[in-house]
Amino acid sequence: MERIEHIGIAVNSIENAGKVYEKLLNTPVYKTEEVKSENVITAFLQCGPNKIELLEATSEDSPIAKFIAKKGEGVHHIAFEVLDIRAEMERLKSEGFVLLNEEPKMGADNKLVCFVHPKGVNGVLVELCQNQDFITS
Amino acid sequence: MERIEHIGIAVNSIENAGKVYEKLLNTPVYKTEEVKSENVITAFLQCGPNKIELLEATSEDSPIAKFIAKKGEGVHHIAFEVLDIRAEMERLKSEGFVLLNEEPKMGADNKLVCFVHPKGVNGVLVELCQNQDFITS
Repeated sequence: MERIEHIGIAVNSIENAGKVYEKLLNTPVYKTEEVKSENVITAFLQCGPNKIELLEATSEDSPIAKFIAKKGEGVHHIAFEVLDIRAEMERLKSEGFVLLNEEPKMGADNKLVCFVHPKGVNGVLVELCQNQDFITS
Repeated sequence: MERIEHIGIAVNSIENAGKVYEKLLNTPVYKTEEVKSENVITAFLQCGPNKIELLEATSEDSPIAKFIAKKGEGVHHIAFEVLDIRAEMERLKSEGFVLLNEEPKMGADNKLVCFVHPKGVNGVLVELCQNQDFITS
């Protein structure tokens, strides 16, 4: 794992939360992006080598809508940057972690992603993400 | 804000969670430390420029015990590194954020810290932290 790539935060409104985090971090939202496969709109803010990703549901069956209904707004996942997502997925499986997708899938921000079940990680939903620019094969 | 300094994760057992996160991040716990003022034991793992801080309560009235009783294990706070904590505290107050301590206090890892009320940050407990080495006055 190279670093915390981003922290995903479930919010009711990207527009409102974007203003809050712009004030908090003293930096503008630099990108918004819809991830249709997950039924979310995302907004990104940079903080040094890390990012904050705000997530708003676009439908009631979005994982983000379900999360907020159960827990309220707050931290939804921690994403770690990896250089070789398939190798990390294999390593984690061999260590006993449960992956939520067996194949890497496309996430926001042009990343290949895989989620790890929070039950095996002390309640934390972990995302592995690999920059597409790093793919050589 | 310079970067995400660490993510604080509330766990039932530092010993058990330490083993999990050592496998997850493929790196050892490099330090454990008791913060008596907060009634917690902490364990740290490095991930590139960032850290994971595991937090176990040492008494029932620890904020971590209360958090776990209410929400279960999981992400407790996000800590952002700042170079001048008093200046950042003033800036955030002027932006309408509510600080949980009016003066910086000593946290784990030789840091001066200040917490920001989660109600104004979309449910996220935010910590500002300044390395003591940076203090010149």
